[in-house]
Amino acid sequence: MIQRIHHIAIVVSDLDAAIDSYQNQLGFEVGKRLLIPEQEVEIAFLPAGESMIELIQPTTETSGVAKYLAKRGEGLHHICLTVADIEASLEALAAKDVQLITPSPIQAAEGRGLFIHPQATHGVLIELLEPDDPS
Amino acid sequence: MIQRIHHIAIVVSDLDAAIDSYQNQLGFEVGKRLLIPEQEVEIAFLPAGESMIELIQPTTETSGVAKYLAKRGEGLHHICLTVADIEASLEALAAKDVQLITPSPIQAAEGRGLFIHPQATHGVLIELLEPDDPS
Repeated sequence: MIQRIHHIAIVVSDLDAAIDSYQNQLGFEVGKRLLIPEQEVEIAFLPAGESMIELIQPTTETSGVAKYLAKRGEGLHHICLTVADIEASLEALAAKDVQLITPSPIQAAEGRGLFIHPQATHGVLIELLEPDDPS
Repeated sequence: MIQRIHHIAIVVSDLDAAIDSYQNQLGFEVGKRLLIPEQEVEIAFLPAGESMIELIQPTTETSGVAKYLAKRGEGLHHICLTVADIEASLEALAAKDVQLITPSPIQAAEGRGLFIHPQATHGVLIELLEPDDPS
């Protein structure tokens, strides 16, 4: 079902400071940077081969990401894996009674995705994504 | 400096159970599986495109990984990024006073690597690796 790692998401408290660290210490370049008001976050993608690092800063104190940051501090948040067909993946997961956070695919920044509950995957929040641009 | 994501490491309490979840729910195949007594862990690599998921189970209660598991529970542990030349990376990091956990490259399962302190990278433990097999 899984094709590749699309991105690894890291929650940060200050997006500019985090971009500066990843650029200047590790030599990353900044790809897309987006404000997503409906998710109450600002994100930046840093390409790494066929994958990306996604830096996420909450823009309010009420979102799930903001609460995660308040509770656990900055750090790894989730991994996103690409699939060819998100509907087929949803059916396969449902057939195995895998616990999902999103009961049906939702439109994300990069395509249509769903989130699997960490209880099903040994503590890891996993997003499955059918990218709008599969390249 | 960074070429690609080599692996994302996930700490688990029961390697067999975790492999079963990732195989049967998400369709991963199991690549290499290794007992590494000197690091007090058993690991399994699950390929995903040009990267891998690394499942890590501590085999003692005294290792750093065992303490991490006891404190934080199962979940994401570190990300590993490949570099072409680990010595050059070390020099570049030292020139910028980036805080390291390993002061010089160490031999890891897949090549020579070093660990950057999470304080330098917004809460993320990052391993840089010059793979023995760059493919």
